Amino acid sequence: MFKVNVMYPYTEGARFDHTYYRDRHMPMVKARLGNACAYYTIEKGLAGGAPGAPPAFVAMCAFICDSAEGYEAAIQEHRAEILGDITNYTDIVPVLQISEIVVERSDR
Amino acid sequence: MFKVNVMYPYTEGARFDHTYYRDRHMPMVKARLGNACAYYTIEKGLAGGAPGAPPAFVAMCAFICDSAEGYEAAIQEHRAEILGDITNYTDIVPVLQISEIVVERSDR
Repeated sequence: MFKVNVMYPYTEGARFDHTYYRDRHMPMVKARLGNACAYYTIEKGLAGGAPGAPPAFVAMCAFICDSAEGYEAAIQEHRAEILGDITNYTDIVPVLQISEIVVERSDR
Repeated sequence: MFKVNVMYPYTEGARFDHTYYRDRHMPMVKARLGNACAYYTIEKGLAGGAPGAPPAFVAMCAFICDSAEGYEAAIQEHRAEILGDITNYTDIVPVLQISEIVVERSDR
């Protein structure tokens, strides 16, 4: 299993609409990915490690997929629509990372 | 629900023993956290967003908890043992982030 992480670095004064991201953007991306994505996760950054420090990322999401190639093929087809929607919720350029899932959930 | 992310930045030439991390370190931390942690996840960074780019993080884990305070209290008690084990698998200083879980798993 693979995980495609999309991480939005915390930036002073930057804009991020968590409601739009949760209710509009992510469901739309999942609909376009179809079976290439098993499920997704979303989190909102609250704090960094040091007392009073901001989080490294204001928001992070992950697409959990059986195959990285399957994800790539599905996303390619809808890239323009997906990228075009980003300005509707943020002006932050996200960091992408593809990971191998080592432990999906420790109690399983 | 909250997520405590521990992210190890990719560093050229740095050491990271993924087997020790999966088989020894993370189960030990979970045992010390007890019920303060519902479950954890582990991933291994494969690639960044640009073609040929390394991942931002060589490894990432997350502790999923009902309460950030409960996690803090549990970790404080075992901080010396947990921090002392880090040199057994890496020389990278991790980035910590506390997040609020917005969507734990989209199909639920």
